[in-house]
Amino acid sequence: MTARRIARLIALAAAAMVSVSSMAQDGKDVTQTQLNHHLGTSPLANEPMHQNTSNSKAPPMTQAEFDLGRKIYFERCAGCHGVLRKGATGKPLTPDITLEKGTEYLKVFIAYGSPAGMPNWQTSGEMTEKEVDLMARYIQQDPPTPPEYSMADMKSTWKILVDPKDRPKKKENNYNISNIFSTTLRDTGEVALIDGDTKQIINIVKTGYAVHISRMSASGRYLFVIGRDAKINMIDLWMAKPDNVAEIRVGLEARSVDTSKFKGYEDKYAVAGSYWPPQFVIMDGDTLEPLKIVATRGMTVDTQEYHPEPRVAAIVASHFKPEFLVNVKETGKTLLVDYSNINELKTTEIGSARFLHDGGWDASKRYFMVAANNSNKVAAIDAKEGKLAGLIDVGKIPHPGRGANFIHPKYGPVWATGHLGDETISLIGTDPVKHKEYAFKEVAKLKGQGGGALFIKSHPKSNHLYSDTPLNPDAKFAQSVAVYDINNLDKGYTVLPIAEWAGLTDDGAKRVVQPEYNKAGDEVWFAVWSAKDKQSAIVVVDDKTLKLKAVIKDPRLITPTGHFNVNNTQHDVY
Amino acid sequence: MTARRIARLIALAAAAMVSVSSMAQDGKDVTQTQLNHHLGTSPLANEPMHQNTSNSKAPPMTQAEFDLGRKIYFERCAGCHGVLRKGATGKPLTPDITLEKGTEYLKVFIAYGSPAGMPNWQTSGEMTEKEVDLMARYIQQDPPTPPEYSMADMKSTWKILVDPKDRPKKKENNYNISNIFSTTLRDTGEVALIDGDTKQIINIVKTGYAVHISRMSASGRYLFVIGRDAKINMIDLWMAKPDNVAEIRVGLEARSVDTSKFKGYEDKYAVAGSYWPPQFVIMDGDTLEPLKIVATRGMTVDTQEYHPEPRVAAIVASHFKPEFLVNVKETGKTLLVDYSNINELKTTEIGSARFLHDGGWDASKRYFMVAANNSNKVAAIDAKEGKLAGLIDVGKIPHPGRGANFIHPKYGPVWATGHLGDETISLIGTDPVKHKEYAFKEVAKLKGQGGGALFIKSHPKSNHLYSDTPLNPDAKFAQSVAVYDINNLDKGYTVLPIAEWAGLTDDGAKRVVQPEYNKAGDEVWFAVWSAKDKQSAIVVVDDKTLKLKAVIKDPRLITPTGHFNVNNTQHDVY
Repeated sequence: MTARRIARLIALAAAAMVSVSSMAQDGKDVTQTQLNHHLGTSPLANEPMHQNTSNSKAPPMTQAEFDLGRKIYFERCAGCHGVLRKGATGKPLTPDITLEKGTEYLKVFIAYGSPAGMPNWQTSGEMTEKEVDLMARYIQQDPPTPPEYSMADMKSTWKILVDPKDRPKKKENNYNISNIFSTTLRDTGEVALIDGDTKQIINIVKTGYAVHISRMSASGRYLFVIGRDAKINMIDLWMAKPDNVAEIRVGLEARSVDTSKFKGYEDKYAVAGSYWPPQFVIMDGDTLEPLKIVATRGMTVDTQEYHPEPRVAAIVASHFKPEFLVNVKETGKTLLVDYSNINELKTTEIGSARFLHDGGWDASKRYFMVAANNSNKVAAIDAKEGKLAGLIDVGKIPHPGRGANFIHPKYGPVWATGHLGDETISLIGTDPVKHKEYAFKEVAKLKGQGGGALFIKSHPKSNHLYSDTPLNPDAKFAQSVAVYDINNLDKGYTVLPIAEWAGLTDDGAKRVVQPEYNKAGDEVWFAVWSAKDKQSAIVVVDDKTLKLKAVIKDPRLITPTGHFNVNNTQHDVY
Repeated sequence: MTARRIARLIALAAAAMVSVSSMAQDGKDVTQTQLNHHLGTSPLANEPMHQNTSNSKAPPMTQAEFDLGRKIYFERCAGCHGVLRKGATGKPLTPDITLEKGTEYLKVFIAYGSPAGMPNWQTSGEMTEKEVDLMARYIQQDPPTPPEYSMADMKSTWKILVDPKDRPKKKENNYNISNIFSTTLRDTGEVALIDGDTKQIINIVKTGYAVHISRMSASGRYLFVIGRDAKINMIDLWMAKPDNVAEIRVGLEARSVDTSKFKGYEDKYAVAGSYWPPQFVIMDGDTLEPLKIVATRGMTVDTQEYHPEPRVAAIVASHFKPEFLVNVKETGKTLLVDYSNINELKTTEIGSARFLHDGGWDASKRYFMVAANNSNKVAAIDAKEGKLAGLIDVGKIPHPGRGANFIHPKYGPVWATGHLGDETISLIGTDPVKHKEYAFKEVAKLKGQGGGALFIKSHPKSNHLYSDTPLNPDAKFAQSVAVYDINNLDKGYTVLPIAEWAGLTDDGAKRVVQPEYNKAGDEVWFAVWSAKDKQSAIVVVDDKTLKLKAVIKDPRLITPTGHFNVNNTQHDVY
């Protein structure tokens, strides 16, 4: 893979994180309305431009053009460049920079992309020539600041659909709920709840758009999902037919939700982090009632400069203390938020490196391993001592999801991450007691199929390590998965042709996403993700034999992407 | 005093807090240059207006007019209305509000004031008709956001004037340094160090403009002062002639500085809070090297809305823990900042009420008593337990300075505050053990001379309580002080004609400011504060007899305002 191709897929991956309609043209209607709503788009299309959105040195735009530019920017550009265009994975695009470049230069850049990571929006067919011209002019305007999202805003969206007192007193179904899978149906704004034992769909639940993750309450009863539109749904798995019991919108754009897991606080609180506004909110664990909002705007970890848009990325719940660990992306800080007293909230701020994104626990659940993606580092946060245990150089743009834990024959317990930007898998030692010399160091690099990896997974009962590459531009890699024997890593990987096994007959993208074990750790599930108007599927592999075990096809399984096994999510098994 | 007069003096008091040249016309040269510098005023006076400062619906202004408006706003209006005009003691003045009022209405309002507290800027002679017209147009423009102030900005202003290794190894003078007074010379940007024993001036030290407070290091060696221009000076009292050893600028506008006082951390850290940008910084206690900046932008305590300008008001150092207690004004939160590990900074956020301003310790030094000024409340923060001990309704716009502690014959230990907005003095019980029924309640209201009180003071060895009223519009009250016998509070107060005792012969304002005890607690010092071109003085009263003991006059004592006794400041005796 050339440097240019790698760079391009990094940008596309980041854009995919916010793209509301990049995968499905016909998803536009709903999301355009939503966007118009939360971006405050003027209904008066040809009015002169509103104040605060203009820059007299910038090329003129009508209000309609500006509004369209704002919408396209939010969908395509904000993920990399930030809503306020201060830059993150992408470069800053503030008018002091863009005005100097000028419209013609910017048009070429947007149309053809750059080896440094800018996608070729026009030549790829993703934007028209007219849209490219519009965007070249749009980014010379002052970036409009989206509205804040206060307690009153949240409360106005909060709904208790089934009051706690009206919910089941005991489980009212016969499902083995600890082996249910929650699968994101990205473009329809739903999750599919699938019985892991029978492979039957239990229910299709309406949620926010493009659910980013599913998380379990400590008891294993409640499932929480959060859409990229910052809508949270709370699903009761005890119901005869599990379904929503509460919902809320916590911002304009979000990625993360989790629940309190420390002894004595099981099912007590939920927490959600948003990209815009840059803040997180602690909610009641029974009802999603918003209780406490905490802003994350502040100083960067390195230069100690104020950043107006430090987005909240991954959040996990500590097993050692009544704390949430909240990653603040642009400032490079992990906040340890003590929920034992939310009125007198205690927070420990651990700085590591900018662009903290995703991560998960090591096998002991003491160390939170976090990718600082555009810094090419992984930070190890010690949740017991409340300090930085290590900051490790890894490959280009690490993207672990929650990462994978296994016992390496030589290095002992390791945690692994793949990368968006290169084909390596980094193994990091996580045992500072019995394997001190390897602890919080990159002990080995495995070679994978290519860049564009999103998720890596293993299981305590498995001898395998799986790494997907769904964002690799080469369909051969995007449609298959690499499997390693963790006792013979030197032998390299075996390729499983997951998309081929799905037996889909149309020409969909068939990206293979997110290996996910069942509760027993003897099956691995994969989404085979095509566009909204194409067939998709779930493929189940026998982990012992690496043979196909089952294919789940259903007309309702539209754009499946991430999926989460209840038991493994509840207990942070990965 | 009429309601209108009370309101007006509240506004004037707040304006005085930021007014750079309100008291002295000839102070303008220096401060105008400074303001031009930190407000980024364009040298190109008649250029068309810069971007981001205009609002096409607002009446037109030239760049020169806009710059002058910005300067006047910063000097006269920002203290009440905030730099971003979101409102605090004054009402919000954002264009959505001001455009609707229109230029003519605003001109009348600015010129004639209002009973609700707006000063009559034109009829009082403080603004010309032309300036009023300009300001009426200025406040319809979008508020320009002043620049941020990063670690690099701070470091560029940081100077070690005498390196720690070159400083005295032992005290090199014969002063009784624990009885030195540090007196702010407001308009000259200096402090006078005065020997409390001999009443002689030891040195006049160059500092920032309008030094707001003086604070001592825990050891009693170093004196820290902070100007309203956010310049900090660190003075070594061990030098043969005590003088500056380090300085730094920490923002554009500031009020508070303190030092670490917990056992094991004596003289280790200093901390300063700024009004703009809204943040605080922890510095090395030997050199003022800036180490850690923490932004305070966040959610208000009541409605949980994002506030872009939560200014840092009073800061104190805990005696129970290695913590600074930082008041964040507009959000109504006191932050307990644990300085034992500034790399992994732990902060406890205690919400009480908006507009936290000044305050001090109760006699046990466990409870930080804080005025939420425009909420007409006092919050009691328990520094031992890290929680809110009480939130007490008091009079109108409490302004305690650090307040006054004494043993009330009936209510036991009480802490007292005067008010800007009424003539009362509120007494609050502070002993939850032996006087539980009175703890954190307003147990009594004393009647004082009038509104416009700034400081109240007592001393463990004194039977008196002093309350000044320097901002009272009636010269009779502004030029005298009320004294209470704390064992006979029902008898009312005695008036001491301090200004008269000073024997000043010109027609200066002679405002009597800030009772301050000497170390022994048997003398009380007062500043008699007139304009820069008038004579001022310090008056010393014998606390036992309430008779004049000494008058300190010196041509160098220009605009003395606050003053701080080393011992009482070092040990929080008040």
